[in-house]
Amino acid sequence: MADGLPFSRLCVIGGGLIGTSLARAAKASDAGIETVIADASASVVATIRDKGFADRATTNVLDAVTGADLVVLAVPVGAMGAVGAAIAPSLKDGAVVSDVGSVKNSVLEDLAAVLPDHVHLIPGHPVAGAEKSGPEASRATLFVNRWSILTPPEDADPAAVARLRAFWESIGAMVEIMDAAHHDLVLAVTSHLPHLIAFTIVGTADDLETVHKSEVMKFSAGGFRDFTRIAASDPVMWRDIFLNNREAVIEVLGRFSEELSVLQRAIRWGDGAALEAAFSRTRAIRRGIVEIGQDTDREDFGRDLPAPYSQS
Amino acid sequence: MADGLPFSRLCVIGGGLIGTSLARAAKASDAGIETVIADASASVVATIRDKGFADRATTNVLDAVTGADLVVLAVPVGAMGAVGAAIAPSLKDGAVVSDVGSVKNSVLEDLAAVLPDHVHLIPGHPVAGAEKSGPEASRATLFVNRWSILTPPEDADPAAVARLRAFWESIGAMVEIMDAAHHDLVLAVTSHLPHLIAFTIVGTADDLETVHKSEVMKFSAGGFRDFTRIAASDPVMWRDIFLNNREAVIEVLGRFSEELSVLQRAIRWGDGAALEAAFSRTRAIRRGIVEIGQDTDREDFGRDLPAPYSQS
Repeated sequence: MADGLPFSRLCVIGGGLIGTSLARAAKASDAGIETVIADASASVVATIRDKGFADRATTNVLDAVTGADLVVLAVPVGAMGAVGAAIAPSLKDGAVVSDVGSVKNSVLEDLAAVLPDHVHLIPGHPVAGAEKSGPEASRATLFVNRWSILTPPEDADPAAVARLRAFWESIGAMVEIMDAAHHDLVLAVTSHLPHLIAFTIVGTADDLETVHKSEVMKFSAGGFRDFTRIAASDPVMWRDIFLNNREAVIEVLGRFSEELSVLQRAIRWGDGAALEAAFSRTRAIRRGIVEIGQDTDREDFGRDLPAPYSQS
Repeated sequence: MADGLPFSRLCVIGGGLIGTSLARAAKASDAGIETVIADASASVVATIRDKGFADRATTNVLDAVTGADLVVLAVPVGAMGAVGAAIAPSLKDGAVVSDVGSVKNSVLEDLAAVLPDHVHLIPGHPVAGAEKSGPEASRATLFVNRWSILTPPEDADPAAVARLRAFWESIGAMVEIMDAAHHDLVLAVTSHLPHLIAFTIVGTADDLETVHKSEVMKFSAGGFRDFTRIAASDPVMWRDIFLNNREAVIEVLGRFSEELSVLQRAIRWGDGAALEAAFSRTRAIRRGIVEIGQDTDREDFGRDLPAPYSQS
């Protein structure tokens, strides 16, 4: 750890969008940190090597983690336990082991059960991402101005937590610390429920017999297309999120269904005042999100505007 | 109608985002067409005059429609009948009267009941818009490469329909013709249900006692923020849409709720295979929408990327 750098060698397990972006961000932020990516797929490893996304890339996880003082698991949350068990024998004394999974309680449990006592387990979750998957979709600036949540267990070493926080801040992220259960509830609202709803609405449209799929696509600019972006997210990653955050998701889903029933009733009974009141209170949250820099204020997210038409 | 132009004077009733964009598009597309906007609000009229968004702007609708051969109502769908009745005495013989409402069956009925026999009623709906309201948010290119749906009644004059189609095409839109009932079902899927869901999910987050509003906003990049954009749409406009497309909305909402229950059950019972299958089939629709040019392929809708961080 020269020059007060929090870590000298980062090993990322899983060369997907998030894992590769993390290695690239670390490389870009500081010339001194060595980056290694391990992935089970030889073609993913080849891509990472070809593009120079990390200093080293390998299919051998035991080799990859050897000597790393920061190991970050970037695999679907259902695979954390197995990957943790696989790397356990090679982990360096005092290494910080973290992850980027969207669920934290199950990851904390699964990893605590398999990691050796001589490492610091501090689960984490950068709230950033994109609808595309794989190393080609990665970018070094993915975490800039985005929140990264750390969920250290109660007995975590404060110095290790501080080093992990410093690492995330060095790649442009803002860090918040909370317990794993609260993380899972917050993310159930801000991420898991929205994804479930988006998958559902796109599936609903796909099932209608009376409306052609071509019509759904042609007239999607009325709102539907927004949902298709997050409904295009990785199916395996999302399967694992829902399987591992079951209780919190079902809790917020219950709230959502209640609220939807109230609006459905207002529509059925023609209660315009109730609808207008419900639709009026949602603007403030949008404004808040834009004000704190978590979304753009540009019209339509700043989507490409069509080229000006020519009068012919 | 010099030079084969479909119309020589356009009168738009309602100087909001859509109405003002329509007048601006008409002005931009062809130097020959005269544009008039009427709005009940003196401040809206003043803005339109100041910015030169139309050749004329007035609060007097009777004056505005006089001599117009195309009159387009751009007011909330619940106001169509009253506005139609108000302008009826001044409508020119043979004028085409259309609208831009997001519901077509109720508009067709409401306007047919009040308009004189000597005009051509051809309801329409440009599937375009933005989360911002008012004339300042308008732009001349709003309809370019977007679909505009016309729903002429069965006995409509084909020549009048052809002229209205030519008008929309002259401002860059693509035109599709269908009956009003089918329009209302298609849009219930592609626009009304997505908006209702977005309003609901934002309202659900607003109601939670266990998650702070500040947390919802901070961690919204995980998916939630996408929903807040359409949930920031105009409350009165949307109230009227739901009140006037009740049956189709309740029909697709029933489908949606069924689908959601199936996924909820799969989560509760840990049925990973069912979840993965459901999440896998939605990518094709996203791909189709991008392929036909109804959405951008850029990551995250091409949202502003954050400025590169500096290592300090």
